[in-house]
Amino acid sequence: MLSVSPAVLSRAKTIVEPALRHAVGSLDENLRLPVTYHLGWTDKDGNPSDAGSGKGIRSALAILGAEAVNASADVAIAGGVAVELIHNFSLIHDDIMDNDRTRRHRATVWDVFGIGEGIVVGDAMHALAFEILLDDSRTPHGATATRRLAKATSAMIAGQAQDVALDRGATASLAECIAMETNKTGALLAQSVAIGAVLGGGDDVVVDALEDFGIALGIGFQAVDDVLGIWGESATTGKPVGNDLREQKKSMPIAIAFDRGGDIGQAVLDAFTGPLNDNQIAALASKLESAGIRDEVQSIARDYLDQAIKTLDTVALAAPAKTELIELANFIWERDS
Amino acid sequence: MLSVSPAVLSRAKTIVEPALRHAVGSLDENLRLPVTYHLGWTDKDGNPSDAGSGKGIRSALAILGAEAVNASADVAIAGGVAVELIHNFSLIHDDIMDNDRTRRHRATVWDVFGIGEGIVVGDAMHALAFEILLDDSRTPHGATATRRLAKATSAMIAGQAQDVALDRGATASLAECIAMETNKTGALLAQSVAIGAVLGGGDDVVVDALEDFGIALGIGFQAVDDVLGIWGESATTGKPVGNDLREQKKSMPIAIAFDRGGDIGQAVLDAFTGPLNDNQIAALASKLESAGIRDEVQSIARDYLDQAIKTLDTVALAAPAKTELIELANFIWERDS
Repeated sequence: MLSVSPAVLSRAKTIVEPALRHAVGSLDENLRLPVTYHLGWTDKDGNPSDAGSGKGIRSALAILGAEAVNASADVAIAGGVAVELIHNFSLIHDDIMDNDRTRRHRATVWDVFGIGEGIVVGDAMHALAFEILLDDSRTPHGATATRRLAKATSAMIAGQAQDVALDRGATASLAECIAMETNKTGALLAQSVAIGAVLGGGDDVVVDALEDFGIALGIGFQAVDDVLGIWGESATTGKPVGNDLREQKKSMPIAIAFDRGGDIGQAVLDAFTGPLNDNQIAALASKLESAGIRDEVQSIARDYLDQAIKTLDTVALAAPAKTELIELANFIWERDS
Repeated sequence: MLSVSPAVLSRAKTIVEPALRHAVGSLDENLRLPVTYHLGWTDKDGNPSDAGSGKGIRSALAILGAEAVNASADVAIAGGVAVELIHNFSLIHDDIMDNDRTRRHRATVWDVFGIGEGIVVGDAMHALAFEILLDDSRTPHGATATRRLAKATSAMIAGQAQDVALDRGATASLAECIAMETNKTGALLAQSVAIGAVLGGGDDVVVDALEDFGIALGIGFQAVDDVLGIWGESATTGKPVGNDLREQKKSMPIAIAFDRGGDIGQAVLDAFTGPLNDNQIAALASKLESAGIRDEVQSIARDYLDQAIKTLDTVALAAPAKTELIELANFIWERDS
């Protein structure tokens, strides 16, 4: 797969990051360091760093949401900051819950600063997101946008709880997995673009169509993530190879194996009875691939991304933004990290 | 000390609790049980229970805020629900950070359900608070009230981070301690009454005066808490005797001892070098009391509560609500739990 980052990602970062840095700078001094570390702006001692801070897909969606309804990108800055804060708070908390020690090629916040710090800085980013969006005076639509942010955040957290519950159960179906991922990943991606459009003064019909685009995009995004979680290269994903198998996550490939049953379902059931070593992880990944499950998840990803793109034709959108939304969907398909 | 619960606490509970139960009922099924357990509505298996769910001081303040500006208590219901959700989310997360295993005479949420569950249900209550207040259609003031809720939540979280930082340091001054407690406890109490007044359509001057009342009330509240944390009875506080000394918290009595220095400062420094057994805790509590520090903190509490009450005279408030706000301040002084 190729992975050429679309121009909108760097453009959105240029627009949103100064405001994001300003927002993080407003946090209490006891809270700032783990946040700047997490975002890749500093090392763990506070020295400047240019470690990656994530792709910024959510803030790019907010910017494109505003531009799609013919508004200036500026009106979506607070929205872009808010969705990045919510996304990153959830990563910090999820890493504690999932016992993940590596993210973006570096030790996770709780691994460096402790569980207590991870909890409180995540809480601070969560509250700050609402504060920033409600305080925004660039447009009169802050309250409507914040309502969508609150709903997306609640759905995302419910998705995380569903994820933990699925992982605790013996098996999971693809339907359960997609329902969980729609909440965990789809809701915030969907509301990122919708919030941008709301802040830009978009009509409800357009905002709702962009939300639908975002939900389908989110499921496609997560399907690609689930492929990378098993077959991705550590060098690009920033996580250990086969991480989702090591953690025995009930991701889409595993859910499909359970739905199929037979040899492949049994192979997963057998593997998930105890800790797996690297050889067992490689063998299971190979078995899933031979059974055609990697291809099947990729085809699910492509279908959802195509569906997302088609949704954009149902309403009138500014052409440049529409083109960039399509580029973003295709980038999600092509990405290797 | 006497501790007759003022009528407004049970009245506010009657008004707010049905909406709080409805809100909690809207949580994903994977999230509900730890919340109903924490609130004392069920045991850990989901069987109905009438364990205490806290005094509900914050929702009572919200109700009185509305009534103080001559509005109906009903307009403050969503505000009351929101502040109770924020308060209780913070208790659940703080108990993890502080490694506390007992609250309200029962095992804490993380102790029963695990750290991961404690994190995610706290997050869910946090997001739900914003959702409830923004969705409220009883008054047109939801966005203004939510802005205050976000600021209070951010301050409360900063206060928790400051608390952790103080506990990590060798000593702390009374000024640092009060600054921390103003954030950790004062901000949400202050905004609880202010949010009620905002939802009731109160003038800015009145809302700001009620906020000032709440800040002073919060510091007085915390001073009483700090006395109970060392000298309170386990049977009434629901926590182990001398809990704050066992955890070597930098609460007001300890900060005063450090400010004084000399024998009492040295006694605390010496005691806080390693874990304390029950005899050492009792001996230190006795030393602090002999040095007059218990009386000094009680007098700080009384001063702040008097200051809070005086603030109520600076604006025109509905007389019955004003009387009940004063009763609440006096109850905070008299309480033994």
